[in-house]
Amino acid sequence: VTLEVQRPSDSPGVLRLILSNPPANATSIEDLRSIADTLENLSPDDHVVVVSARGKGFSAGGDLKEMGRLEGHEGILQQCLESARACTAISRCPIPVIMVVHDYCLGVGIELVGSADIALANEDALFQWTEIDNGTVGGAAQGFRMLPSQVLRHLMFTAEPITARDLWIRGALTEVLPISNLEARSQDIARTIAEKPSDLVRHLKASMDSIEGLNVESAMRFEQGFIFQLNMEGSGSAARAAFLDGDRKGLKGSSALPDT
Amino acid sequence: VTLEVQRPSDSPGVLRLILSNPPANATSIEDLRSIADTLENLSPDDHVVVVSARGKGFSAGGDLKEMGRLEGHEGILQQCLESARACTAISRCPIPVIMVVHDYCLGVGIELVGSADIALANEDALFQWTEIDNGTVGGAAQGFRMLPSQVLRHLMFTAEPITARDLWIRGALTEVLPISNLEARSQDIARTIAEKPSDLVRHLKASMDSIEGLNVESAMRFEQGFIFQLNMEGSGSAARAAFLDGDRKGLKGSSALPDT
Amino acid sequence: VTLEVQRPSDSPGVLRLILSNPPANATSIEDLRSIADTLENLSPDDHVVVVSARGKGFSAGGDLKEMGRLEGHEGILQQCLESARACTAISRCPIPVIMVVHDYCLGVGIELVGSADIALANEDALFQWTEIDNGTVGGAAQGFRMLPSQVLRHLMFTAEPITARDLWIRGALTEVLPISNLEARSQDIARTIAEKPSDLVRHLKASMDSIEGLNVESAMRFEQGFIFQLNMEGSGSAARAAFLDGDRKGLKGSSALPDT
Repeated sequence: VTLEVQRPSDSPGVLRLILSNPPANATSIEDLRSIADTLENLSPDDHVVVVSARGKGFSAGGDLKEMGRLEGHEGILQQCLESARACTAISRCPIPVIMVVHDYCLGVGIELVGSADIALANEDALFQWTEIDNGTVGGAAQGFRMLPSQVLRHLMFTAEPITARDLWIRGALTEVLPISNLEARSQDIARTIAEKPSDLVRHLKASMDSIEGLNVESAMRFEQGFIFQLNMEGSGSAARAAFLDGDRKGLKGSSALPDT
Repeated sequence: VTLEVQRPSDSPGVLRLILSNPPANATSIEDLRSIADTLENLSPDDHVVVVSARGKGFSAGGDLKEMGRLEGHEGILQQCLESARACTAISRCPIPVIMVVHDYCLGVGIELVGSADIALANEDALFQWTEIDNGTVGGAAQGFRMLPSQVLRHLMFTAEPITARDLWIRGALTEVLPISNLEARSQDIARTIAEKPSDLVRHLKASMDSIEGLNVESAMRFEQGFIFQLNMEGSGSAARAAFLDGDRKGLKGSSALPDT
Repeated sequence: VTLEVQRPSDSPGVLRLILSNPPANATSIEDLRSIADTLENLSPDDHVVVVSARGKGFSAGGDLKEMGRLEGHEGILQQCLESARACTAISRCPIPVIMVVHDYCLGVGIELVGSADIALANEDALFQWTEIDNGTVGGAAQGFRMLPSQVLRHLMFTAEPITARDLWIRGALTEVLPISNLEARSQDIARTIAEKPSDLVRHLKASMDSIEGLNVESAMRFEQGFIFQLNMEGSGSAARAAFLDGDRKGLKGSSALPDT
């Protein structure tokens, strides 16, 4: 399994999900399915969820190599459907979800982060809405709750990388800090919430979710109409193939991923 | 009376409401009722409203001691209904409402501030969404128009205090400044607006209110369904009792209120 | 013609619109009509639009002198209807629209900027929501996607000028930079977008537009109900006449326009 599920005995009420998919933490269909399955089957004793990753960075985006190995449209189809399930499970989770991002976060990784209640990152972490370079259009519903509209559009139309610090300055993320403090601070927030009466936290979450009016499931379904069309028309699969062939113009220069 | 209503002769068109409820400006049911009553009965000569407080700070939140003195659910019920009336009266006020916050602003105080058109604070003022520690869930409708969603969720789930300066950095409040300039600057803004043609200001207010689509009344009604449920279930009243008993864990350390 | 339309051969896919209406770039009815006409008749080879201006500043707001020359309500009526057409054409444009603001941007100029996907300005450029001083109420739909609600209300109720840098700090604009870099950077962004596959960019734009839910046409129609009422009642035309007579109190002191 690529998703570790922990309930640490020294932090009662804290449910930890740890992504670990070497070498680069490309987010696989199985990762997304495991997140959804876990959040749809919480224990009444779970008071707060913390999602982080082990390895080089939080998420290298959807696993294009896996998609390339699957037959026909199967790869992109499963990535879409399971990412919608995972993001919906995060945004509708009955208890708060805290995302802890280190070093890099691309594509579907940002969709997961933007679906959550609270999101921390180390200040140098690089974020990149890579969708347009990978032949897809996702992430707007989550992006619009992180950033002013025009700032998001700039990032999504250009696929320019941006640091966590610069994202924070424009309104996104709840906190950015040195990587040495990231783990301790996120655990501190999780414990603070876990110690509140759980019925109060659950009622507050339900109330805020409705008043915010976020509907990740519907928005992703809408976006995926465009993604499926792009794949029927051929542009979607062509963009993924170009990535795998390594021939996309200026790729290394514009990618937020370290060379591997 | 705990709400002073002034129409200063040197500032024609400016209606001043001054909260004064010693020792700490806990916001009483009567305070909320007076705000609503005043704003629902404006004179055609009123062009702009300025709400401030006299004493240690702007608002210590809803008056838990008063709620404790009233029979059964009467205290929480009246606080809820009158805070919804006051916030609705502010947000639907036909003329602009300016809130001037000094030193601290907790719980229902933030709901009042977030319902207004313009909000200034001294840069060191402490804000705290104390709802979750007092057994309630309110303030989301106002909070979502002050802060990005995830930033608000962090503050509401943890009840961490935050300075006016840090709130301003994340998008809330129109202006933060040294306390020595707070009164002069807020009067300056009020006079600027009062000198504009009043029919223009009223039309602009009505137009912006509709286009923003804020519905404080409906959102608070929705939240209060959860508050009433929490009190029927017992958690709401238990949290208030714990506060009054002074036995809530770490209270002094985490409260934005100065020791009294 | 006051709107130059260019398709530079060294930037394939980039459509440039350049406003030029000496001496001050007051935005005429013809300017607005030309923007709408051009964006409603794009070529399939256009991948991205860049709108800028030549001369002292980006826009001095709607041309009050032109409105004064037209008979009866004709001036304000045509300004309103054509500004709604232009803003709608920008916000519904099937390809991204980049606004490049230099030195000043008032009134309807901000409505154009706020309707676009991406907006850059030189850091010292002055913005001013002059509507209330000119007897109108427009710009809220665009303003609410640029700024937090209370910040926008402060600017619209007071008509205070604000620099691009200060707007950026509060969330508006995608980038502010020294004027010497403005042209190069905006062309760089345009070329980056123009090089992406155009079907992907168009699908992404359509998807984001729907998910954001912005409806400039409906919001401006709503606002213009108030503007038309103000002109039937006389306050709207009186404010414009006062401007033309140069007798509005403190005008020079509060205007973002340089003396001409």
